[in-house]
Amino acid sequence: MIRAGIMGASGYTGGELMRLLEVHPQAEVVCATSRRLDGKQVSQTHPHLKGFTDLKFRNLDAGDVAGQCDVVFTAVPHGSAMDIVPDLLDTGTKVIDLSADYRLASSVFEQAYGLRHKAPRDAVFGLVELHPEVCDALLVANPGCYPTGATLAAAPMAAAGLIERVIFDSKSGISGAGVEPSPVSHYPNMAENIQAYKLTTHRHGAEMRQELERFDSTIKVSFTPHVIPSVRGILTTAHMFLKTGAEAAQVAGIYRQFYAGKPFVRLLGGIPMLGPVRGSNFCDIGFEMDADGQRLVVVSAIDNLVKGAAGQAVQNMNLMFGLDETSGLWNPAIFP
Amino acid sequence: MIRAGIMGASGYTGGELMRLLEVHPQAEVVCATSRRLDGKQVSQTHPHLKGFTDLKFRNLDAGDVAGQCDVVFTAVPHGSAMDIVPDLLDTGTKVIDLSADYRLASSVFEQAYGLRHKAPRDAVFGLVELHPEVCDALLVANPGCYPTGATLAAAPMAAAGLIERVIFDSKSGISGAGVEPSPVSHYPNMAENIQAYKLTTHRHGAEMRQELERFDSTIKVSFTPHVIPSVRGILTTAHMFLKTGAEAAQVAGIYRQFYAGKPFVRLLGGIPMLGPVRGSNFCDIGFEMDADGQRLVVVSAIDNLVKGAAGQAVQNMNLMFGLDETSGLWNPAIFP
Amino acid sequence: MIRAGIMGASGYTGGELMRLLEVHPQAEVVCATSRRLDGKQVSQTHPHLKGFTDLKFRNLDAGDVAGQCDVVFTAVPHGSAMDIVPDLLDTGTKVIDLSADYRLASSVFEQAYGLRHKAPRDAVFGLVELHPEVCDALLVANPGCYPTGATLAAAPMAAAGLIERVIFDSKSGISGAGVEPSPVSHYPNMAENIQAYKLTTHRHGAEMRQELERFDSTIKVSFTPHVIPSVRGILTTAHMFLKTGAEAAQVAGIYRQFYAGKPFVRLLGGIPMLGPVRGSNFCDIGFEMDADGQRLVVVSAIDNLVKGAAGQAVQNMNLMFGLDETSGLWNPAIFP
Amino acid sequence: MIRAGIMGASGYTGGELMRLLEVHPQAEVVCATSRRLDGKQVSQTHPHLKGFTDLKFRNLDAGDVAGQCDVVFTAVPHGSAMDIVPDLLDTGTKVIDLSADYRLASSVFEQAYGLRHKAPRDAVFGLVELHPEVCDALLVANPGCYPTGATLAAAPMAAAGLIERVIFDSKSGISGAGVEPSPVSHYPNMAENIQAYKLTTHRHGAEMRQELERFDSTIKVSFTPHVIPSVRGILTTAHMFLKTGAEAAQVAGIYRQFYAGKPFVRLLGGIPMLGPVRGSNFCDIGFEMDADGQRLVVVSAIDNLVKGAAGQAVQNMNLMFGLDETSGLWNPAIFP
Repeated sequence: MIRAGIMGASGYTGGELMRLLEVHPQAEVVCATSRRLDGKQVSQTHPHLKGFTDLKFRNLDAGDVAGQCDVVFTAVPHGSAMDIVPDLLDTGTKVIDLSADYRLASSVFEQAYGLRHKAPRDAVFGLVELHPEVCDALLVANPGCYPTGATLAAAPMAAAGLIERVIFDSKSGISGAGVEPSPVSHYPNMAENIQAYKLTTHRHGAEMRQELERFDSTIKVSFTPHVIPSVRGILTTAHMFLKTGAEAAQVAGIYRQFYAGKPFVRLLGGIPMLGPVRGSNFCDIGFEMDADGQRLVVVSAIDNLVKGAAGQAVQNMNLMFGLDETSGLWNPAIFP
Repeated sequence: MIRAGIMGASGYTGGELMRLLEVHPQAEVVCATSRRLDGKQVSQTHPHLKGFTDLKFRNLDAGDVAGQCDVVFTAVPHGSAMDIVPDLLDTGTKVIDLSADYRLASSVFEQAYGLRHKAPRDAVFGLVELHPEVCDALLVANPGCYPTGATLAAAPMAAAGLIERVIFDSKSGISGAGVEPSPVSHYPNMAENIQAYKLTTHRHGAEMRQELERFDSTIKVSFTPHVIPSVRGILTTAHMFLKTGAEAAQVAGIYRQFYAGKPFVRLLGGIPMLGPVRGSNFCDIGFEMDADGQRLVVVSAIDNLVKGAAGQAVQNMNLMFGLDETSGLWNPAIFP
Repeated sequence: MIRAGIMGASGYTGGELMRLLEVHPQAEVVCATSRRLDGKQVSQTHPHLKGFTDLKFRNLDAGDVAGQCDVVFTAVPHGSAMDIVPDLLDTGTKVIDLSADYRLASSVFEQAYGLRHKAPRDAVFGLVELHPEVCDALLVANPGCYPTGATLAAAPMAAAGLIERVIFDSKSGISGAGVEPSPVSHYPNMAENIQAYKLTTHRHGAEMRQELERFDSTIKVSFTPHVIPSVRGILTTAHMFLKTGAEAAQVAGIYRQFYAGKPFVRLLGGIPMLGPVRGSNFCDIGFEMDADGQRLVVVSAIDNLVKGAAGQAVQNMNLMFGLDETSGLWNPAIFP
Repeated sequence: MIRAGIMGASGYTGGELMRLLEVHPQAEVVCATSRRLDGKQVSQTHPHLKGFTDLKFRNLDAGDVAGQCDVVFTAVPHGSAMDIVPDLLDTGTKVIDLSADYRLASSVFEQAYGLRHKAPRDAVFGLVELHPEVCDALLVANPGCYPTGATLAAAPMAAAGLIERVIFDSKSGISGAGVEPSPVSHYPNMAENIQAYKLTTHRHGAEMRQELERFDSTIKVSFTPHVIPSVRGILTTAHMFLKTGAEAAQVAGIYRQFYAGKPFVRLLGGIPMLGPVRGSNFCDIGFEMDADGQRLVVVSAIDNLVKGAAGQAVQNMNLMFGLDETSGLWNPAIFP
């Protein structure tokens, strides 16, 4: 059994990691840290885990955690991971970092986040479908939730060199804003509403550019996020303007070939919805082409807490330890 | 024009009072106080009022407010109203208190709220349909949201002396929990959920007992509240066990007679819903009788922020100033 | 009093027209037609109107309706209005058509809707803020819900000749799909979901192009609609790519000047939401500019049933009859 | 591997059975029938199952199904199961019937459902926690969704002979109304609403009485159901009036003892919610006692499609085939 630790386990990502790992056939959670909840039962904060774990949160530092674990998931705020990841790596423990600290080149990170990077390290960007090298990684930077759905929607066309410009208009469930109550997550504000924010400046844009420019350095990428009255899920509408016209059948072929053998990408004949991926690790993708073949609209759907966070982290863990990619993750969505 | 002041105007009740009063044909808001938001535009906090008021919140005490106003609405927390209502009354200003401080006999208040009452005053319980004496009141204690819907559901049967026991099982929209974000109002906690709370001990039970025991001192009253994933509205299911059997036609007659001439109570042939009262001052009532005539289930629906708070307060104001009861309130609900 | 008739009054638009007109100070509804509900109480179908109208639906033809009315609102399906509008006009009655039949040049209509237009007539496109000539119109074609919010978001920049390309990514409340239950409006399908549809082919795109090309024939317009788990409201995110760079202050000035004296357009410092327009006739607009001044994202919010349908129709009626534009419409939104 | 067939597999219960069985370690679905969808891919109707099954719906009769299966789940409307269950049993196949046809004594069934029972058979009521004899059953009548949560909430107190009267006020997610769009499930009707129905006459009351009267024939049982704006879940508030006063510690002890060794009943210190059971087979139970010890309010929470239908059916299957009760069901809820 892989012994897993979770640093920063009191939030939604921490709870979701435990939901997946407590019933994972080849892993177990041996340690869950939280400064604020030191000594409290995990299942009091994550009530769905009652009966699955008797673990208590503990206030431990990286060294203490590393000693007990084969892999550590760091689910701490961006800017904090860089304080603990190097210590973890120094002990030889593998690390999957769910913060933003190791996703971008340091210079890009510093500009996007307005922080100096104290401890750059070599990391693999853990978007598994694009980065088979996670198998050999010691440090995986788990992608942001928006970049996961957006990049998977556009990557095949970018790799084919066909995109001139893409606008990602993303709609996220409110769980992405975290476990702490705030005005945006206040039910009377969010119900019967949709909230656009950071219309041109959201930091996740940098990850999308990094990943798509690997395929085509000329691609122009815009990104606008919204939160919708849904707990989970991100639907991304990718408006693509093509360099040269294409036909629907050709596009379908490009996607099929690109994602052949990728168990968690499902190509649909129709348009994806959030329900059929809720609680699962799938990314569903569908598209329609404009009549003149110049504009392609691709829609992707993921569960932001699973494929957009904890599920993808477990997918990375599976590969880093030589397990089947789907181990512990092969469950249908909860639908309806 | 009646010059109205609102003390504690930054919450939902304050916003709703302004929504109603800014387009009331015979009243105007001249003053809105808030300590925390002193100097801020009202329409920044209450964005629906943009274009309707240029008022700024001010941090004023009771004396300053009373000097400018013919009536003052106190929308402050329970326990705080007793600090300002006496000062307001001393200036001769009429007062409509939306807190709990003047709804109950002092001894009952002190037991229910665990607070000593510093300044009891004579007040009329402002459930207009049961208390025509609001017309002559100087101080009206505006009823709680749950007691409004529950009492109106049961009053006719209580007045007829027919109820042995009534259990009010109420379901409230989450706006009743106020404008401040909290775990219970956090969207991921409230969506796709229903939250029972204070199963046997909610303080609003005391108001229900007070009002129903006026009709029949032997009536047994239980109350359990819930919050549901809806912004507005309270649906109360009143399970009544009768002293003697009754027939549906007889019950219908009792309700019709009791509420004759009451414009804001609508008796339905079917079962009330929240949509048809949303944003309006109506209380819709319907019922079904058990086959053996011993158990009657009455359902009432109100908008907790209107008939359950601000609308009823304006209804009281109308009567206190000799206006038509419906003035400024005669609008259909927003449905769907 | 203006005597108003509503043909096709059983749907949401019909109900909303009656909600507004029943309390309009200078109009009254004298006639509401429905084939299916002939003889039924209006307030049984529109339960929020109980107490406001005793009208029954009637199955009347255009001639019968025209005889009783100064203005007729036709809220029938597209393709059906062309069967009755000419008859209504022939009697001298003014007509406000809420279907799509008279919004577009006949040839454009025929292409977009795949129908032959049997009875073209001169009509004014009733987007009041852009078409002051509605004052003199006998037939007004009330705009579609999506085109209202999208066109208002982009018109000032189009009029300034600054837009090279605009992508409207719109998110609509599900009431836009109408009163009939269907899979898309089935609660378990819509809750916790967002549904993109007609990614490149929605017919409302034609109205947006028509209106914006009046200002600038070179503008490129794309449109993708979504439905979100909200009853009312349309939020449109307008992604604009500019011909020449612009600064935020310049853009703000363009919008202020363009909408000066337009009471129902509110320019916000921040980003619009659906709550502050719910149940009201406002269109709220806000924007953010990309760092390099080449990309402008404008967001507009309307209530699809009010400014996007019935409210705008009443606004048109007001102007066609020389009333104040805001008559019967000057109410704040229901928020929260 | 247990070969399972599902008759009537196109609805929510059918989809949920397949969600559970497709990843069950000791069972497989070999046959899914639907008249209407004969020949269609299962994963087109149940989109979350894409990648998990290539099965097509088939229009088969009982004999054809029985031949391929060790167990058949009948998820057909009440009144239809009695047409197929006897044929299935005659072949020696075990049957788990999810309709109402075999839950009640025939005479009670006929009165509650207004139908003559054509083919009574011996069946075990499949509320596993109360009926260990399911282990030996050939025909299990899977309980109704409301009776499952209500009966589990009250059974320990009924078994202790302490309840004089219990009122079950239940709140169900709308998925309980099925997969077919209808006015009650129409999003604009259900959102921001709660709908009480069949206030005194819902047929599920008969199951609750049958089960509780087994413990105490004098118990008085009332039941009122509601639907709430949630997809899944049933919260039942059980208002109990006791024969003799009790203390909270005593009540806690009664529940602990009664449910000792029952893995799917979780006794909480606090009040249950729907989130922590969503998608799982748990029934969470909590309570509060009135100050005078005469009134006990117990709250239970289940997922109506899992513990209230498909999950409980699989739990029954596990026991009927000598498997561990939790096999294929031991997963935490999807929370938030």
